[in-house]
Amino acid sequence: MIVRPNQHWFLSLFNWRGSVLPNILSRLALNLLVSVSAVILLPYYDSLGVHLTTAPFSLVGIAIAIFLGFRTNTSYARFNEARCLWGMLLITTRSISRQVQSILNDKADSLLAAQFLMAFSWSLKHQLRGTNAQTDLERLLPEPYLSEVLSSPLRTNRILLLLGEWLGQKYRAGQLSDIVWADIDKNLNEMAHIQGACERIANTPIPYAYGLILRRTVYLFCTILPFALVDDLRYLTPLISVFISYTFLSLEYVAEEIEEPFGTAPNDLALDAICTTIEINQLEMNDIRPLPSSMQPDPNYRLS
Amino acid sequence: MIVRPNQHWFLSLFNWRGSVLPNILSRLALNLLVSVSAVILLPYYDSLGVHLTTAPFSLVGIAIAIFLGFRTNTSYARFNEARCLWGMLLITTRSISRQVQSILNDKADSLLAAQFLMAFSWSLKHQLRGTNAQTDLERLLPEPYLSEVLSSPLRTNRILLLLGEWLGQKYRAGQLSDIVWADIDKNLNEMAHIQGACERIANTPIPYAYGLILRRTVYLFCTILPFALVDDLRYLTPLISVFISYTFLSLEYVAEEIEEPFGTAPNDLALDAICTTIEINQLEMNDIRPLPSSMQPDPNYRLS
Amino acid sequence: MIVRPNQHWFLSLFNWRGSVLPNILSRLALNLLVSVSAVILLPYYDSLGVHLTTAPFSLVGIAIAIFLGFRTNTSYARFNEARCLWGMLLITTRSISRQVQSILNDKADSLLAAQFLMAFSWSLKHQLRGTNAQTDLERLLPEPYLSEVLSSPLRTNRILLLLGEWLGQKYRAGQLSDIVWADIDKNLNEMAHIQGACERIANTPIPYAYGLILRRTVYLFCTILPFALVDDLRYLTPLISVFISYTFLSLEYVAEEIEEPFGTAPNDLALDAICTTIEINQLEMNDIRPLPSSMQPDPNYRLS
Amino acid sequence: MIVRPNQHWFLSLFNWRGSVLPNILSRLALNLLVSVSAVILLPYYDSLGVHLTTAPFSLVGIAIAIFLGFRTNTSYARFNEARCLWGMLLITTRSISRQVQSILNDKADSLLAAQFLMAFSWSLKHQLRGTNAQTDLERLLPEPYLSEVLSSPLRTNRILLLLGEWLGQKYRAGQLSDIVWADIDKNLNEMAHIQGACERIANTPIPYAYGLILRRTVYLFCTILPFALVDDLRYLTPLISVFISYTFLSLEYVAEEIEEPFGTAPNDLALDAICTTIEINQLEMNDIRPLPSSMQPDPNYRLS
Amino acid sequence: MIVRPNQHWFLSLFNWRGSVLPNILSRLALNLLVSVSAVILLPYYDSLGVHLTTAPFSLVGIAIAIFLGFRTNTSYARFNEARCLWGMLLITTRSISRQVQSILNDKADSLLAAQFLMAFSWSLKHQLRGTNAQTDLERLLPEPYLSEVLSSPLRTNRILLLLGEWLGQKYRAGQLSDIVWADIDKNLNEMAHIQGACERIANTPIPYAYGLILRRTVYLFCTILPFALVDDLRYLTPLISVFISYTFLSLEYVAEEIEEPFGTAPNDLALDAICTTIEINQLEMNDIRPLPSSMQPDPNYRLS
Repeated sequence: MIVRPNQHWFLSLFNWRGSVLPNILSRLALNLLVSVSAVILLPYYDSLGVHLTTAPFSLVGIAIAIFLGFRTNTSYARFNEARCLWGMLLITTRSISRQVQSILNDKADSLLAAQFLMAFSWSLKHQLRGTNAQTDLERLLPEPYLSEVLSSPLRTNRILLLLGEWLGQKYRAGQLSDIVWADIDKNLNEMAHIQGACERIANTPIPYAYGLILRRTVYLFCTILPFALVDDLRYLTPLISVFISYTFLSLEYVAEEIEEPFGTAPNDLALDAICTTIEINQLEMNDIRPLPSSMQPDPNYRLS
Repeated sequence: MIVRPNQHWFLSLFNWRGSVLPNILSRLALNLLVSVSAVILLPYYDSLGVHLTTAPFSLVGIAIAIFLGFRTNTSYARFNEARCLWGMLLITTRSISRQVQSILNDKADSLLAAQFLMAFSWSLKHQLRGTNAQTDLERLLPEPYLSEVLSSPLRTNRILLLLGEWLGQKYRAGQLSDIVWADIDKNLNEMAHIQGACERIANTPIPYAYGLILRRTVYLFCTILPFALVDDLRYLTPLISVFISYTFLSLEYVAEEIEEPFGTAPNDLALDAICTTIEINQLEMNDIRPLPSSMQPDPNYRLS
Repeated sequence: MIVRPNQHWFLSLFNWRGSVLPNILSRLALNLLVSVSAVILLPYYDSLGVHLTTAPFSLVGIAIAIFLGFRTNTSYARFNEARCLWGMLLITTRSISRQVQSILNDKADSLLAAQFLMAFSWSLKHQLRGTNAQTDLERLLPEPYLSEVLSSPLRTNRILLLLGEWLGQKYRAGQLSDIVWADIDKNLNEMAHIQGACERIANTPIPYAYGLILRRTVYLFCTILPFALVDDLRYLTPLISVFISYTFLSLEYVAEEIEEPFGTAPNDLALDAICTTIEINQLEMNDIRPLPSSMQPDPNYRLS
Repeated sequence: MIVRPNQHWFLSLFNWRGSVLPNILSRLALNLLVSVSAVILLPYYDSLGVHLTTAPFSLVGIAIAIFLGFRTNTSYARFNEARCLWGMLLITTRSISRQVQSILNDKADSLLAAQFLMAFSWSLKHQLRGTNAQTDLERLLPEPYLSEVLSSPLRTNRILLLLGEWLGQKYRAGQLSDIVWADIDKNLNEMAHIQGACERIANTPIPYAYGLILRRTVYLFCTILPFALVDDLRYLTPLISVFISYTFLSLEYVAEEIEEPFGTAPNDLALDAICTTIEINQLEMNDIRPLPSSMQPDPNYRLS
Repeated sequence: MIVRPNQHWFLSLFNWRGSVLPNILSRLALNLLVSVSAVILLPYYDSLGVHLTTAPFSLVGIAIAIFLGFRTNTSYARFNEARCLWGMLLITTRSISRQVQSILNDKADSLLAAQFLMAFSWSLKHQLRGTNAQTDLERLLPEPYLSEVLSSPLRTNRILLLLGEWLGQKYRAGQLSDIVWADIDKNLNEMAHIQGACERIANTPIPYAYGLILRRTVYLFCTILPFALVDDLRYLTPLISVFISYTFLSLEYVAEEIEEPFGTAPNDLALDAICTTIEINQLEMNDIRPLPSSMQPDPNYRLS
């Protein structure tokens, strides 16, 4: 996630670090090259008797508007759903902790529940990013739970199963009435929902054909465009052509980046920061001090 | 489902296997034919005194933009809802297993529940695709349940009914308190909801008139267009005309393909892969090894 | 509901039976008349010194795009919500039957519940379409419930009230614990929700002014358009003008038709078919054979 | 609410009573005045050497399309949410009555509950419209509840509080088990939700700046437009200019009217009719006859 | 929040106080400067042989329409979600109070619950705005709760935890059955949800790249535009150019302002007013008089 720099509106126009400009430079350079060729080839082009105007481009523009609008909206919807799910995870872990504390009223139990909840969050983060959760799990989970989780091929799900079994023991031992058990269990269902929905987002992209058709259309559009502009604009063609290409290419680029919100690209979600927040909340609710400090953005305004 | 190939953005522009291009070739060929005719007929056309410009096309473009935007959004909404429902199925089957394990705490019971849940998933897949579930049901369900399911005309629903009756027996036998029964029953309601919503998507297409009007408008639009372009573009007409047609036809084509997300076309949902995932999860939660391996995409990046 | 005919894409372009073309023929004829007049009046029109181009039409096009997009989306949203509600009805009736069977475990009780549920569905259908439910109620409900329902001015609601009272008796007689009662009662609330939401859709159209303004704008637009096209297109004017009018008029027409999804127009919901499906499901769950057969579309691809 | 008149499509084009035309006549007259001035000033205008075309207007048109689309959608979303909330109120009051009847099974209790529910509905209507609820409350509520409600500054909320206390007494007296109490209480939460959400809609308009910017843009657009049209259209300018203005101004006008759905403007919600429906339902469920008759639209097709 | 002034539509066009015009004056001045330069440089510009028309601008317009529409919709969605959450807070605090009163039926308990609820609301407001909650907490919370909250780094969450513990004590002491506890606890979960969702909105802006690309595109667009207009419009260029810029810049400005709905800019949410409303409701439900008066907008129509 790129944090909004605290800049005057005028200066922000020239902000380089938080921008996507560096990532699409090669594509813009290609467009510049074509534009310059169009200017150079102008005399030969005139003699062909062909007259390319911008009119056909506004027809293509209709299709691009639909595609690009669709892609921007669906990519953002995925990003936003992912963010809401992780927000729900913070909320649900807080609620489970509150319920366990107010009912069981036992410091050791509260702490164990917090450990399960923190381990679940970090494990889910590692699962979604394809990284190894072992270090974090060893830091957070006590034995014998740690071994069982580490030996399972589906670790995140196993943590939830163990938390469920622990609550089931409390219920069978009479420490939780069935009502209270059911009330907490609802929040466990919520955690299962969060996990499953994150997996769904990670495993099912927007139908591949949409991205491909859009990309082809936009690139072909930007490549042919200079030949339509050069008649009127002459040596101003590269300037205007690169400007128009910038608007379409950057829009396409950001949509692609946030479509997979669990990655580590600049505009993706700051899962590390959210996991740290969950950890701080759990520890604070158990009166453990000092608390870890929240994560801060790096000099490029990025928060991982 | 077509899996996103791991390609450089430039190479992906020329990706053939994951593209819809092969499917609309005949339609583009038709357009090419009309364009070439327009170029050949140009001298005769000029003598008619009629001057077709692109201006009327931008008026039709308004209607197409509304239609195509509407169709893309509603088709994707159906695709996405279908995907969410199958994601919910994974989540709900996990939650029911967790609940049964933590409350009943009996290996045989847990396994039987898992068998019902796996059978329900595969049966729903077969129902939605119109294929025969018998082989999968025989593999997954024990007797006497198997016979009862196979003899029913509404198999998926019958499996859920049997799971409900089995839980009702546990309740009447006192192994489940009414609260716990009600808590698990909520997840059975959720499964009934998933089944019913999938049936709804499969049985009620987007009103047929929308698809038909759109298709007619787009085809007529693409067919007349070359005559409007030929005056200015001359022998470049086929190139630009096919490009414009490609953007509209491919958009229309993908919308049509994902409108029925339960089919086996390239961009449809990978129901086999999801059912396998559900099976892996159920078996893992019951500590059964080795687990089946997840499904992998074929050389055309397709996952069925 | 018009069922998608199983046709090749090329043939479907000329499909007449499932199309809205027959319904807007008179409107297109009017437009054709104006176009032909424009061609005939051309010499006089030229001498007026007035030069109507398509430029003002693209400004009106902005308003039409907003209106038509809005109307298409809201009409479809109503259609889709209505379909989801009837899908929910199938789901909820199945769930109540499953709950009653697994808890009460008594064939007579299960059957009576099924009768209430089937009567509710058919009664709601008749209420929404303004037809008489008496024949269906007599077929489905036993006495003394039938008389009470028939004598009530709010029959659908009364059936639900009677089902609620019957469950209340079971609760007061100790056959249902309060938890189980509450769990089934949630599904009764759901049925009340379905009924109320359907009534809302039937009783509150999209604000009338929207439909009226759109219709006026589209008709005035299509009527003036030929005079803007005739200068360039001459005797091709009727062709292009009718094509443009077709796109706007048909879009407006379908939106109007599906805005009231409970009617019996071709693109409305197939409530008869859904009620039959609900009936088949209830009977199957009670092991009653033979089952009624599902409804099939008529030769015009219509399902009522 | 304006009820859709049962008219042939052609006649409805000239419908005056249900139209917004009377309300924007003064604005259209202003536009007509400017258009006529443009025609008269044409000779002087030509000599200025300035050539205003419609091209800059299509750029402004982009902004207007975004604004107007946004405003139409958000206004309708408010209207629709308000309608859904009042639909939910009908549903929830029915459900509470059904629950009270099937559990308490006492005619006096059922009637008192119905009185609370009817009083709540009418009181909420008066609160949202800023009118005095006293007459309706005196008609509906028995003492001592009436005095307590009338003396409270927050009457609607107080009615719900009293209903809650009455159910609390039943619970403390053992007439309701805690489960049943909780089940009914959920519907009370729902009523609190309906009330709060209606208050939110009434108290928080769409950010004021949006409406203002849109109105300014549209008016300036319509005022300058005749000067761009007059060159080509000459004395046809007023006709086309008023037509274009009509589409934008009427769209803006309806959006403004339905933005506050609880008012008494023609396109606002028919709260009186809904309250009467709720009353009819409550009385019918308590077998009280004769029932009040439903409200009918006035000769201008309006339902208040 | 700016309250809608009660003005005639014509006067409101010239409303200055509630407008965003003062905030974008510097940006419009910059645009005016460029426009005037374009007029002055016209003779030199003509001699360059370059002919910049508005055609390329309508291509950029497509991108701007997508961007600006996306940004307006997502910003408003954030604003609206935030408003709904605070509306839910009013609803939930009312419901908890109603539940506590009708079950515990004890004035001291009801008051303490109300104090927790009021403190939670004000504390959340201060947290979201980054101000110090101490004065309000001292005013609202009794000891020993006050000290515990003040010493916690996560105050809002701690208040909810204390409320949960207080209810847990009531449950363990037998004053609340587990069902009733669970029923109230659901509303505590709701409060945790409101808090977490507000934190999510405050901590995760719309991906920074979107805002930046849009701003760059709009500014570059407005800056180059005068050179395209000057050929036709000559000394009218500044007027039309500033008008077009106004529509785009003001739209961009409002979107930016409401994107962070918890700030204190004119169009942000009136959190002080909502907190006061919650306080009035809690006190009224406990029969405490006199009630604080609701907040009123200042002379600039602003409500903080």
